[in-house]
Amino acid sequence: MAKKQPDTVERIQDEAKGVYQRIRKKQKPQMKLPIRALSNVKYRAGAGFFQLRGRNKVRTLTVNTVKTFAQTLKMLSMSLDLIRTERHSTKREAYYQAYNWGDAAFASQDESDTVMDDVEAMISVNREQLRFRADEHGGEVAGELVVIDADRRTGRPIEIDCTRFGSGAYSVPTVVEDLGFKTSAKFILAVETKGMFERLVEEDFYDRHHCILVSMGGVPSRACRRFIRRLADEKKLPVYVFTDGDPYGYFNIYRTLKVGSGNAAHLNEFFCVPRARFLGVTPDDIVEYDLPTHALKDVDRKRASDALKNDPFIRHHKTWQKSIHQMLKMGVRVEQQALAKHGLEFVAKTYLPRKLKETGRFLP
Amino acid sequence: MAKKQPDTVERIQDEAKGVYQRIRKKQKPQMKLPIRALSNVKYRAGAGFFQLRGRNKVRTLTVNTVKTFAQTLKMLSMSLDLIRTERHSTKREAYYQAYNWGDAAFASQDESDTVMDDVEAMISVNREQLRFRADEHGGEVAGELVVIDADRRTGRPIEIDCTRFGSGAYSVPTVVEDLGFKTSAKFILAVETKGMFERLVEEDFYDRHHCILVSMGGVPSRACRRFIRRLADEKKLPVYVFTDGDPYGYFNIYRTLKVGSGNAAHLNEFFCVPRARFLGVTPDDIVEYDLPTHALKDVDRKRASDALKNDPFIRHHKTWQKSIHQMLKMGVRVEQQALAKHGLEFVAKTYLPRKLKETGRFLP
Repeated sequence: MAKKQPDTVERIQDEAKGVYQRIRKKQKPQMKLPIRALSNVKYRAGAGFFQLRGRNKVRTLTVNTVKTFAQTLKMLSMSLDLIRTERHSTKREAYYQAYNWGDAAFASQDESDTVMDDVEAMISVNREQLRFRADEHGGEVAGELVVIDADRRTGRPIEIDCTRFGSGAYSVPTVVEDLGFKTSAKFILAVETKGMFERLVEEDFYDRHHCILVSMGGVPSRACRRFIRRLADEKKLPVYVFTDGDPYGYFNIYRTLKVGSGNAAHLNEFFCVPRARFLGVTPDDIVEYDLPTHALKDVDRKRASDALKNDPFIRHHKTWQKSIHQMLKMGVRVEQQALAKHGLEFVAKTYLPRKLKETGRFLP
Repeated sequence: MAKKQPDTVERIQDEAKGVYQRIRKKQKPQMKLPIRALSNVKYRAGAGFFQLRGRNKVRTLTVNTVKTFAQTLKMLSMSLDLIRTERHSTKREAYYQAYNWGDAAFASQDESDTVMDDVEAMISVNREQLRFRADEHGGEVAGELVVIDADRRTGRPIEIDCTRFGSGAYSVPTVVEDLGFKTSAKFILAVETKGMFERLVEEDFYDRHHCILVSMGGVPSRACRRFIRRLADEKKLPVYVFTDGDPYGYFNIYRTLKVGSGNAAHLNEFFCVPRARFLGVTPDDIVEYDLPTHALKDVDRKRASDALKNDPFIRHHKTWQKSIHQMLKMGVRVEQQALAKHGLEFVAKTYLPRKLKETGRFLP
């Protein structure tokens, strides 16, 4: 699995060559970076996510930019080293490794994170392909899936059967670029909480419905989003999302998973899951299943009206607007665990099976 | 694996019988609960954790207590149902299941959580044995360990080999009571961050040192603490803890893992890991390895002086006091990733092997 990622290596070498050749010609070396700001972003409904408009800034070597320029080149070189030694480095480790760069050392981790973001946007690959990883939880998986990874010691493929974890689960690593997949599952069900994930495992849900369960643990991390994206694309699987029925579940979790976020537009290409559909819990469900609710908080109302006004994704989808207006009118939010009012097994035996018969009614 | 937990069932039935018999004798039914407060706690250095002093409050059925009394009995009955159906319920699900208790329904989840804590203390088992679980992340494991769980569909034992996850890991379930273990590892190394955990996996650390790696992901959850505790006790393994060198790492993470916390004293018996020892990062390491540091923040200083003044565990151990004074004098904290200054592999190839040669020098 440990591929050599020729693309990334080539792209880094091309950048370096460009700098080198300008120096040889006695010209000032330059680097070209896309501008990473909302002003340089458009919503492409077809592709299904925020995209960069393609405006660039050019960083030319001058007295003022010499330090950043050097740091950017050193960061590219660190990435090459990582690829060659088949290692990864967290952002924090990268910052500390740069302690020995003399005048080019970073004053703080903020500084090194910014240069890393620049490099990521410049090379047009994701940070993980540059072998930098976040220090975050990648989500958990159980169900009809075999993940193929490599045994570091032997280099041989290793098969991880996600039906063989009992009450536990497979914990997704922070870098998923080189993982392979085997599955005959019919869909991926991404759930908000570990509690609901364990409920569905306990009810044999993935067995009965031939699916793959993913616990996002709140807002899904990069690794979790990338894992779902790669798995869904490669195996052409539908992705259904099951969160609480509140603005946090709708926007912070579902919207982020599906279309990405505005301030990281150069990443959405890799991390969004355009094929995701929202299964529930919807405001309609509250009525249909007579669910216990809680009153909306101020922060819920604010999030909802902000989304109606400013979120290009919500503004594009009338059915979402309708649901949000319905929620605001009802004045309540609902937790996915509220289904337990009808018994612990209700969610697995009644609610989800009924929903899955009408996937066409899922919110976009 | 799915044991019937006769102890828990018997204890619940004994409570119920007690209530029933008093009613038959036309006496007011009673329940006896330990007082859950710091005033009812002592530090037992021998046992190694905070313990209840044994003072109880008696809840007698009166007009004022009738609702709580009924809720407590209903909660006991829910627990019995869960044991019989081999299910677990999250705290949130328990709250929603109680929606149908008529006059005994809870006004909020706070109310149901409190009754659950009462029941836990009354029956003198942990909540997980009553089949209630938290909705939290249980930690991740890789290394020389086979976890034995049951396959729910067949009831047969299932062996989970934690050396066979490639770059991923075994995600610990929220309830670990019925897990079995097979291992020839020499020790457990519990690390603060997922980033450091993945670093050690990448460096083949568990292979070279025959150990079990656990990522706590910050302050360890109940499930993570209970997992380490059960594994360490059953297999008589030393537990070494590797965190940042700051008050958060020393007290919030290490101290919580080792001796528990003051406000949940009725639980420490199950969740603390008295055999844990602190490997690092220590203030001594900063000097010895010339590590990059950050200035202590006000919150760090406050945490440290609070611990010196009020924490019975720190007050019991002179070597801890010495280290904290040293940290305060140096005025700096250090992250475990700072070791990357000497190269990514330094922590696995030099720092940890050197430390492991002198386990006697670990902080208590």
